[in-house]
Amino acid sequence: MTIRLGDNQYGKAETHVVRVTRGAKHELKDMTVSIALAGDFAATHLTGDNSHVVPTDTQKNTVFAFAKDPVGEIEDFALRLARHFVSDHRAVQRARVAIAEQPWARITVAGRPHPHAFEKDGSEQRLAAVTCTEDSEWVVSGITGLTLLKSTGSEFRGYRQDHYTTLPETRDRVLATAVDARWRYAGEDVDWMAARREARRLLVETFATKHSLSLQQTLYAMGEAVLEARPEIAEIRLSMPNKHHFVVDLQPFGLNNENEVFYASDRPYGLIEGTVTRDDVEPADQAW
Amino acid sequence: MTIRLGDNQYGKAETHVVRVTRGAKHELKDMTVSIALAGDFAATHLTGDNSHVVPTDTQKNTVFAFAKDPVGEIEDFALRLARHFVSDHRAVQRARVAIAEQPWARITVAGRPHPHAFEKDGSEQRLAAVTCTEDSEWVVSGITGLTLLKSTGSEFRGYRQDHYTTLPETRDRVLATAVDARWRYAGEDVDWMAARREARRLLVETFATKHSLSLQQTLYAMGEAVLEARPEIAEIRLSMPNKHHFVVDLQPFGLNNENEVFYASDRPYGLIEGTVTRDDVEPADQAW
Amino acid sequence: MTIRLGDNQYGKAETHVVRVTRGAKHELKDMTVSIALAGDFAATHLTGDNSHVVPTDTQKNTVFAFAKDPVGEIEDFALRLARHFVSDHRAVQRARVAIAEQPWARITVAGRPHPHAFEKDGSEQRLAAVTCTEDSEWVVSGITGLTLLKSTGSEFRGYRQDHYTTLPETRDRVLATAVDARWRYAGEDVDWMAARREARRLLVETFATKHSLSLQQTLYAMGEAVLEARPEIAEIRLSMPNKHHFVVDLQPFGLNNENEVFYASDRPYGLIEGTVTRDDVEPADQAW
Amino acid sequence: MTIRLGDNQYGKAETHVVRVTRGAKHELKDMTVSIALAGDFAATHLTGDNSHVVPTDTQKNTVFAFAKDPVGEIEDFALRLARHFVSDHRAVQRARVAIAEQPWARITVAGRPHPHAFEKDGSEQRLAAVTCTEDSEWVVSGITGLTLLKSTGSEFRGYRQDHYTTLPETRDRVLATAVDARWRYAGEDVDWMAARREARRLLVETFATKHSLSLQQTLYAMGEAVLEARPEIAEIRLSMPNKHHFVVDLQPFGLNNENEVFYASDRPYGLIEGTVTRDDVEPADQAW
Repeated sequence: MTIRLGDNQYGKAETHVVRVTRGAKHELKDMTVSIALAGDFAATHLTGDNSHVVPTDTQKNTVFAFAKDPVGEIEDFALRLARHFVSDHRAVQRARVAIAEQPWARITVAGRPHPHAFEKDGSEQRLAAVTCTEDSEWVVSGITGLTLLKSTGSEFRGYRQDHYTTLPETRDRVLATAVDARWRYAGEDVDWMAARREARRLLVETFATKHSLSLQQTLYAMGEAVLEARPEIAEIRLSMPNKHHFVVDLQPFGLNNENEVFYASDRPYGLIEGTVTRDDVEPADQAW
Repeated sequence: MTIRLGDNQYGKAETHVVRVTRGAKHELKDMTVSIALAGDFAATHLTGDNSHVVPTDTQKNTVFAFAKDPVGEIEDFALRLARHFVSDHRAVQRARVAIAEQPWARITVAGRPHPHAFEKDGSEQRLAAVTCTEDSEWVVSGITGLTLLKSTGSEFRGYRQDHYTTLPETRDRVLATAVDARWRYAGEDVDWMAARREARRLLVETFATKHSLSLQQTLYAMGEAVLEARPEIAEIRLSMPNKHHFVVDLQPFGLNNENEVFYASDRPYGLIEGTVTRDDVEPADQAW
Repeated sequence: MTIRLGDNQYGKAETHVVRVTRGAKHELKDMTVSIALAGDFAATHLTGDNSHVVPTDTQKNTVFAFAKDPVGEIEDFALRLARHFVSDHRAVQRARVAIAEQPWARITVAGRPHPHAFEKDGSEQRLAAVTCTEDSEWVVSGITGLTLLKSTGSEFRGYRQDHYTTLPETRDRVLATAVDARWRYAGEDVDWMAARREARRLLVETFATKHSLSLQQTLYAMGEAVLEARPEIAEIRLSMPNKHHFVVDLQPFGLNNENEVFYASDRPYGLIEGTVTRDDVEPADQAW
Repeated sequence: MTIRLGDNQYGKAETHVVRVTRGAKHELKDMTVSIALAGDFAATHLTGDNSHVVPTDTQKNTVFAFAKDPVGEIEDFALRLARHFVSDHRAVQRARVAIAEQPWARITVAGRPHPHAFEKDGSEQRLAAVTCTEDSEWVVSGITGLTLLKSTGSEFRGYRQDHYTTLPETRDRVLATAVDARWRYAGEDVDWMAARREARRLLVETFATKHSLSLQQTLYAMGEAVLEARPEIAEIRLSMPNKHHFVVDLQPFGLNNENEVFYASDRPYGLIEGTVTRDDVEPADQAW
């Protein structure tokens, strides 16, 4: 029996860089960048020989230095960074760069957009994760913190009953979730901004319009809508908590609650996770 | 020397109620309600005699039951609840009801607002805090989580120097903050929604347009703008962290950073707190 | 009607300093320091004249520089810092320095305490808050994050009933809380460490041993125990959420639940706040 | 091109159950249980046919009902639950049950352990994750939130230099991390409590005593120590952030800082992740 090193990676996580592009109107890019490198790093683990190690401090510096050039979309910036680590450091066999972008909206003053004042635009963030090896690249984009609710148009019934089932069936419930969506592109010849905007629109519109018999059905319909409309997207992974809204029993107070007053519960919550993919797409576990 | 009970209060905190008003178009009201009662509660502290105690569970029930009726603005709902506890329970000499409202926006489908599907509208919340005693009432409204940034139009110089000063003066810095604003109304004959909308607009526009020599100056200007325009507001309290954005030194990499690449730091942070008030307004510490 | 500046303060919040005292055995002090200064700061608010302003960056530097000397207890360190700002800067009329200390425990190796390796000692933190003006000083100490639970020895009954009461009375419930305790000293000739250790011990032991008819009664008994035993403490303020543990109804599954299986709920929660003080003690609102 | 459902799972997350075992001395078990089921669930995704779906509400009920029987260690409880879902519901082909246990310590009163009063024992949690399919079972145990620091005995030098390197080499730094450790057992004939206690002890002692040339080296040594001593453990995965403690430059204040005063930074942080395994162990990705 020999003990040995298995999978490993390391890097600088959560470098928070804000890039201002100056001019008559300033532009703002707010990114939190996390880097993970894998490759020929056995020596540092086994003997403390760091000669192959690119310090995480250097990785942080690289993020700031690269942000001096025009950043582009977060997919572009992640690609530049990931390629750099793989190409400039022989020991690095795989670099993954994950970026979360906080959107900001221009402040409106007297009906006009202000040239250099901004307000944080919501709790939703844009995500990109690029994985590069010496001979392959994968781009995953996504959104997180997109919280949706429909106050009708959702049922849950016909489910399996067992000894522990007490849930009554319902033909009308509140359905609420916080969508975490990540989709992998088939290639890189993509208009990242347009693809993201359309993917988001399709997710939200499908949630709104699809009559729901289960959150699983809603999840699949959302993913399917994206894949149907966007050929550049190979597969999409959705993680959607069921943020329960329980009808409060108001009978003890002589009141009838016809799906009007709800208690929003934090925990426990349902958690529905699923992938929607294409038949002709090869799996790419390394991309995630 | 005698030991005795001093100030005390108790109540149910963070009852999260979601009210759906049904119809051709559904309306959504998402409120987290916290109640604190003070009064003749010495007995429960000293002997465990609970005969005056309105259980916090009852308080929670009351929130849900009251939400069956039309809720109105959060100020209205807080007033109804606070008055109820003072008037229905003789032991209750002061009731404070604080509500945080999470706004939701209607989802747009094919360019049209959907009748019953919503998305969470940002990380900013609306606040109301109503304090009622047997003979007085105070209404405080506010907003929290309003994060603002200007990428120029902010200086910081001319400050006091001492043995521990290393900060260089600057004529151009990023100024970013998360505004927590609470304002007290002079009375209750107020259009709560309009007042809040205008207060928020004035805070944001003043932040954007006021050339800043210090965050204190910006804070005061923001409060002053609200008081000048809104006679129904007696005073306003602002708490504004200075969310530091530091210029990254790119010289080691042969790059010149002319206020373009910033490191956004979490901690430590400056914290600026101030009240803007009127000469002819009586202090009302009980309101806060 | 004239608009004017009301109460205001500013400072650097959450400077996280870790002080290592080297020697045969290292000592570790982990403190997060928040400073708030008040005084003659109208000019920066009204005109942006910063000549009185001690930058928050300087305050941060001062924390680090002062940590070079032996730190002592957090009360000592807060006193040194607060006195410095009041005495060295004429504009500063009041300085408040609040410190949260994270305790660390020495790692045991082969039964012996290691000279320079430590593990974080729990989620409870020690607090000190010192307020200095030109002619007065107040020291408040405390603890936060002390989570306690008793699985019996707690009742809740005999409370007021109204139209909204549904809670059944109980002679045996789980009582759980997270104690936030802050006590003010009558003077400064105090063994801070011993006083804190004893206050904590009395709080915990009283929680454990006092049969509880209400959380209010428990709170008062805890505060009373501290004041009875520690003459150097003038008053104590306790904030104690009622972290509800609900008995799960297992009847639908043919099981009898005799106070054995509980659902621990996050929100809403009861919140009980109270002060225990002495008859002969003057109020000191500025201290808090 | 056909769109199809890929990997999917669903379940109830974070059911917080507290089990009191009554007697002369009460025992307390505080568990947060998350369940994820996978299997024949295409119908609910594609058509909303829920006939195979075990509602997450039922899963929650099952957790509470199963907690009525003696719970044992969290590995035991997770095994009982996971086996139940696979064996009782034909559609369930894989059940994963993850439990986080919050330890509580008995309160000491007058030097004696109290029979039914407890205090929360730290911020570290015990983890178990059991995965069952029809013909296999895997047990993973772990700990999270174990924060360690050594104030000397750590170097970092000899690393790769590139255009973006500015970090100075050091022969003496503070090394701090929050260990997240998960280990997979080779089988189930294990004394879970003893194995966990010993794994934890070995992790902590190795961190303390191993002179560190890199956090990677420390990580590997910690994992190796566990595998060497515990044959029942097949592999161990460690995730260890480098919680940076930077030496503060006190030269501007005329002070010399010889590794005594540190600034503890939140973000960015290094993140070191690695697996230590055995040559003769088959990979078991499904277990994680």
